[in-house]
Amino acid sequence: MTAICIQVINPNTNAGMTDTIATAARMAAAPGTEIMAVSSREGVPSIEGHFDEAIAAVGVLEQIQAGRQQGVAGHVIACFGDPGLLAARELAQGPVIGIAEAAMHMATLVATRFSIVTTLPRTLIIARHLLHQYGFYDHCAGLHAIDLPVLALEDGSGVAQEQVRARCIQALKEDGCGAIVLGCGGMATLAQALTRELQVPVIDGVSAAVKMVESLVALGLSTSKRGDLAFPEGKALSGKFQTFNTFAI
Amino acid sequence: MTAICIQVINPNTNAGMTDTIATAARMAAAPGTEIMAVSSREGVPSIEGHFDEAIAAVGVLEQIQAGRQQGVAGHVIACFGDPGLLAARELAQGPVIGIAEAAMHMATLVATRFSIVTTLPRTLIIARHLLHQYGFYDHCAGLHAIDLPVLALEDGSGVAQEQVRARCIQALKEDGCGAIVLGCGGMATLAQALTRELQVPVIDGVSAAVKMVESLVALGLSTSKRGDLAFPEGKALSGKFQTFNTFAI
Amino acid sequence: MTAICIQVINPNTNAGMTDTIATAARMAAAPGTEIMAVSSREGVPSIEGHFDEAIAAVGVLEQIQAGRQQGVAGHVIACFGDPGLLAARELAQGPVIGIAEAAMHMATLVATRFSIVTTLPRTLIIARHLLHQYGFYDHCAGLHAIDLPVLALEDGSGVAQEQVRARCIQALKEDGCGAIVLGCGGMATLAQALTRELQVPVIDGVSAAVKMVESLVALGLSTSKRGDLAFPEGKALSGKFQTFNTFAI
Amino acid sequence: MTAICIQVINPNTNAGMTDTIATAARMAAAPGTEIMAVSSREGVPSIEGHFDEAIAAVGVLEQIQAGRQQGVAGHVIACFGDPGLLAARELAQGPVIGIAEAAMHMATLVATRFSIVTTLPRTLIIARHLLHQYGFYDHCAGLHAIDLPVLALEDGSGVAQEQVRARCIQALKEDGCGAIVLGCGGMATLAQALTRELQVPVIDGVSAAVKMVESLVALGLSTSKRGDLAFPEGKALSGKFQTFNTFAI
Amino acid sequence: MTAICIQVINPNTNAGMTDTIATAARMAAAPGTEIMAVSSREGVPSIEGHFDEAIAAVGVLEQIQAGRQQGVAGHVIACFGDPGLLAARELAQGPVIGIAEAAMHMATLVATRFSIVTTLPRTLIIARHLLHQYGFYDHCAGLHAIDLPVLALEDGSGVAQEQVRARCIQALKEDGCGAIVLGCGGMATLAQALTRELQVPVIDGVSAAVKMVESLVALGLSTSKRGDLAFPEGKALSGKFQTFNTFAI
Amino acid sequence: MTAICIQVINPNTNAGMTDTIATAARMAAAPGTEIMAVSSREGVPSIEGHFDEAIAAVGVLEQIQAGRQQGVAGHVIACFGDPGLLAARELAQGPVIGIAEAAMHMATLVATRFSIVTTLPRTLIIARHLLHQYGFYDHCAGLHAIDLPVLALEDGSGVAQEQVRARCIQALKEDGCGAIVLGCGGMATLAQALTRELQVPVIDGVSAAVKMVESLVALGLSTSKRGDLAFPEGKALSGKFQTFNTFAI
Repeated sequence: MTAICIQVINPNTNAGMTDTIATAARMAAAPGTEIMAVSSREGVPSIEGHFDEAIAAVGVLEQIQAGRQQGVAGHVIACFGDPGLLAARELAQGPVIGIAEAAMHMATLVATRFSIVTTLPRTLIIARHLLHQYGFYDHCAGLHAIDLPVLALEDGSGVAQEQVRARCIQALKEDGCGAIVLGCGGMATLAQALTRELQVPVIDGVSAAVKMVESLVALGLSTSKRGDLAFPEGKALSGKFQTFNTFAI
Repeated sequence: MTAICIQVINPNTNAGMTDTIATAARMAAAPGTEIMAVSSREGVPSIEGHFDEAIAAVGVLEQIQAGRQQGVAGHVIACFGDPGLLAARELAQGPVIGIAEAAMHMATLVATRFSIVTTLPRTLIIARHLLHQYGFYDHCAGLHAIDLPVLALEDGSGVAQEQVRARCIQALKEDGCGAIVLGCGGMATLAQALTRELQVPVIDGVSAAVKMVESLVALGLSTSKRGDLAFPEGKALSGKFQTFNTFAI
Repeated sequence: MTAICIQVINPNTNAGMTDTIATAARMAAAPGTEIMAVSSREGVPSIEGHFDEAIAAVGVLEQIQAGRQQGVAGHVIACFGDPGLLAARELAQGPVIGIAEAAMHMATLVATRFSIVTTLPRTLIIARHLLHQYGFYDHCAGLHAIDLPVLALEDGSGVAQEQVRARCIQALKEDGCGAIVLGCGGMATLAQALTRELQVPVIDGVSAAVKMVESLVALGLSTSKRGDLAFPEGKALSGKFQTFNTFAI
Repeated sequence: MTAICIQVINPNTNAGMTDTIATAARMAAAPGTEIMAVSSREGVPSIEGHFDEAIAAVGVLEQIQAGRQQGVAGHVIACFGDPGLLAARELAQGPVIGIAEAAMHMATLVATRFSIVTTLPRTLIIARHLLHQYGFYDHCAGLHAIDLPVLALEDGSGVAQEQVRARCIQALKEDGCGAIVLGCGGMATLAQALTRELQVPVIDGVSAAVKMVESLVALGLSTSKRGDLAFPEGKALSGKFQTFNTFAI
Repeated sequence: MTAICIQVINPNTNAGMTDTIATAARMAAAPGTEIMAVSSREGVPSIEGHFDEAIAAVGVLEQIQAGRQQGVAGHVIACFGDPGLLAARELAQGPVIGIAEAAMHMATLVATRFSIVTTLPRTLIIARHLLHQYGFYDHCAGLHAIDLPVLALEDGSGVAQEQVRARCIQALKEDGCGAIVLGCGGMATLAQALTRELQVPVIDGVSAAVKMVESLVALGLSTSKRGDLAFPEGKALSGKFQTFNTFAI
Repeated sequence: MTAICIQVINPNTNAGMTDTIATAARMAAAPGTEIMAVSSREGVPSIEGHFDEAIAAVGVLEQIQAGRQQGVAGHVIACFGDPGLLAARELAQGPVIGIAEAAMHMATLVATRFSIVTTLPRTLIIARHLLHQYGFYDHCAGLHAIDLPVLALEDGSGVAQEQVRARCIQALKEDGCGAIVLGCGGMATLAQALTRELQVPVIDGVSAAVKMVESLVALGLSTSKRGDLAFPEGKALSGKFQTFNTFAI
């Protein structure tokens, strides 16, 4: 088994969350897999809406470029909105997986219907859009928000974590779902204990995405370069985006 | 009638295309409407894929911010992929309309089914995604690409324009559609002549979007600030995105 | 700017509601737009179901014919079920817009999800069908009925109006929506005050439709006469429908 | 077995087509079923678009009222666009079935996918809308038009009939369908011979609808009077629609 | 009128339920129709999940084969999950109708939206899947389970029957539906009394399916043998499935 | 890394195909994964329709039971129709993945739209149904059949293999897809060479499913036993199905 390196990108700039994500990724990684955890170099400290997603996408793309130059085998976008996913697939040579995508896919493999528990209510629309885009809208039994900001997960108090747990229990009671998807990269390390306690699959997208990248790499499958995911057209970017020009495709 | 100013944003950096877009916007504008045509200050010279869209979104958001500071009444995003649309709506006070959105909406008002004619085949997937997002997938009878890059529309030869015309004719013959949507901001000035020649509505999104912004402004309707389109959470951005921090909301 | 005349058709025969509709239409109209408000000459006093819609469609078509003969630039069908809309488009030369259609379109431009507040519960199915037909089913967060007949809006007591307000507030609380669509022509004049009070877009279709007709006219876009919206086949009608025969196409 | 009477309504005014429809209905009727075939007293000689449908709906409703006063057990609307179907269900006491509805339902019971063969291309959109409304859009493998007007089926030459046959053969070859739905009441008598010749179910809606009404009557099931199909609200109609007022509900 | 024989197959092995089903079928049958009620010879005593469905499908297919050899005119699969329906259509010469299918079709003919009342919550997902497959997902207003096993309907206490009644009343209150579909073959004999008491169509699939088979037979329509419902490919089965080999097609 | 054993079930009884499937599974398996390849003990020699699927499901379930008793970590159902998938999930303790499911999921991770190449045309409907069930209908750009029976892949001539290759090339040309899904377990060993030759991801479900099971096991995620995938209700089966009774849950 050849060792591979997977780049796990935290699209926000919060180092604590990058650590959380790295921990979850490393726990999931196979023996031969190295996890290179990075965060956006510049951008937003947390991602809680459409604007944040748009800004974060650029940071993701810069890291995709860097990761590709370093020869990583594949990439994970570790924010539940999967910011920049299709753009990243254009830029990348290897596979790119978003954590919302990974968690939703995995959920449909172990339950006929799943619910989502996320942070702020304003991010629910992003989950809805992804459910439509990935084809899982009818597999989703309910969408729940704990109504705390993303960074409450990093404040050390455990309040947000307890809220997540309470919402999972509520979702199981109300929605008739068979699994729960955790809707934030900052919740990554909660999944295993909740799975054990609640006796249903509680799915974290970070670890799920790591396994998906490993799987695709092992299968010799990478992002299709035929059609709309082909490398960008090779035009010169200007201004603060010139860094992308050094990227010979 | 109070005069209003509408900011029309060309999300790419091509000045020629900004001129084309400005011309179409001004032809459509009501007497009391001033068109302020701008392009992304930095970014990609043309937008032909997911990567280009992600980069262009930042340029759009910078202009939205600038436009809002200048007190414009509303904004048009003049690229057929509507890059950054929902993010722009978060950032803006007034209404924001994308030209794909505008053209598709208008098409459903004058025909039961419409076809789309765009530039490169790789952009068709973006149009498909927007049709799903806006709810018009079943109203679309066909998607066509002339297989020329966006900037071929600016080379002065007229070859791309003739290809657009030929594809419109083909779409009418094959698709059983009642209207055509032109799938690129660079085609904006072709719509009127094609409408006359082909005797069906051939719809340009730039002019359509200008009228939609005018309409919303006249109705006193603006982007909802309740829920997911509320202003961004007000967190400090870092690095090259710090410019957004100067934006007191 | 050339002056244009828009025919606003109240599909029922209630003069008070025609006045309400005319008021809303005139408030929305641009300086150069004349509003010609008419009601069905014969038919039902209010429209609250499929039967009422079917009857009202004939009255609408008679007015479309009359309006066309008088040279109006476009037509608005001012009942939330949009009775006779596609038939009217066949008959008309200019654009024809229904108020449910107009309000729903506008709502999707200012919010990611909207709710509808209408009169009798039995009309909700009509709104559902229109949401499907126009493509906006997934954009609708909730459907609400005040459980009062349409004409309660015309009784001068203000009770129905207060019920509408209460239901809007409830919808905002329960549905997680960003905008409200008022589901009856008789509510047209309530939208502006509710928008101000509730601080979300509360959308009346009458004024929205007027702006849409103005927009289409300004863009030189009219109902496609290619395909299924072409003028009727020109067959002689019999009996009480003979009046349509005088209509040389 | 009690004898029952089913009213079969030809929504157009063409007596020849009423005869064709009556013949098909009587061939399908059970021994104890009497077929009362009527046509719209006033209206359009054939139905080939949205306008024709809207006019025809009134004629249908008048006959529904008459049929109910005569005590018929149920009603068939024998035009492939099912004009006035939901309005008729409001007005009727017994079940009301449209022939497009009936044929589409039956087709899904004998094949996983079916195709439709109809008359003028402009009517295809009506079939599309019904497929969506009834839930069968994904069960339809293709829509075909012979490009001849409805009344060509009544000209005695057999040309239109031969065109229908040719299109059925083409649909079977191209669409991968398992059954054909004939998309016009005037084709009703062709179904049996085509079924035999082509060795696939070729389904006529008139006979199918007769069996459905018989079935519902036998089961004691009638149009639900709870909710939106309850009788009309009982308001006085004016002008040429006053005839409906004599209808005590 | 020729006499026909319809085979009504109870896919489970419970004789009491076969009797219930036979009773409902015979009450619905036309004078010339003989009901041959059978149950799976081997299998599960009741069907309450995906596993039970898969096992029951074989018993259904054996009976289809037997019924065909006996020359029955058509077949009913009398379990609300319609186990083995498409496989049975391959094997059969005549029409095959499932009772979920039949009840859902009938419901859409008498109401714009219906609710379903079934036994265990775990079977709701099967109903959901069938709603999608048959095209009726948007016609369903609610799904309800009494949370008692199927065989509670056979225990003679009447408790389950009372629970069904209570849930029907609740569904009418909460869902805004116009009809109820009973979601279990064991509820077949409850429909008529509930229809009378609740004054809405309460639909049993057994009787509905009998009428549908009668209708198809009368129309000369049978399962299409063109395409995917053609007889199986004629390969030799092994082991306990060898019984199917004696079936010369 | 703990060694795990994955049971790969060929739902038909053809030993040659079991070998092909085992080869593909072993090539994909991680170092610590043992592949236990089995075929249905009794059933059909190949699976080419709904009937074959229904029979094969029982053989699958027997193997699931056996595999669980032997303590395998998870199961793969290696037929492109995923026969018995949800029933197998009820019966299993560990994860169960179908190869159509696995291939389709993987395809959506590397391309925005994929095409399917399968054997007989009659099996296309099964693929269509699975696309709907899994949520990927809109991600599928085309469905193709080589019109040869499944076992032609095992005849040693290479003719069927060459037909598969030709159809893949045609699909890429006509459909605008970015990846190909091979629609038969017997094609499993073709994927890698075709991926290299055609320069797009050509995806075999057997290897994809092995990686998915490995991933779920590594993540500690297994089939949800809450709700409809809980173990069967524990009723005694009769006759040839008694073998399932020995299965203490």
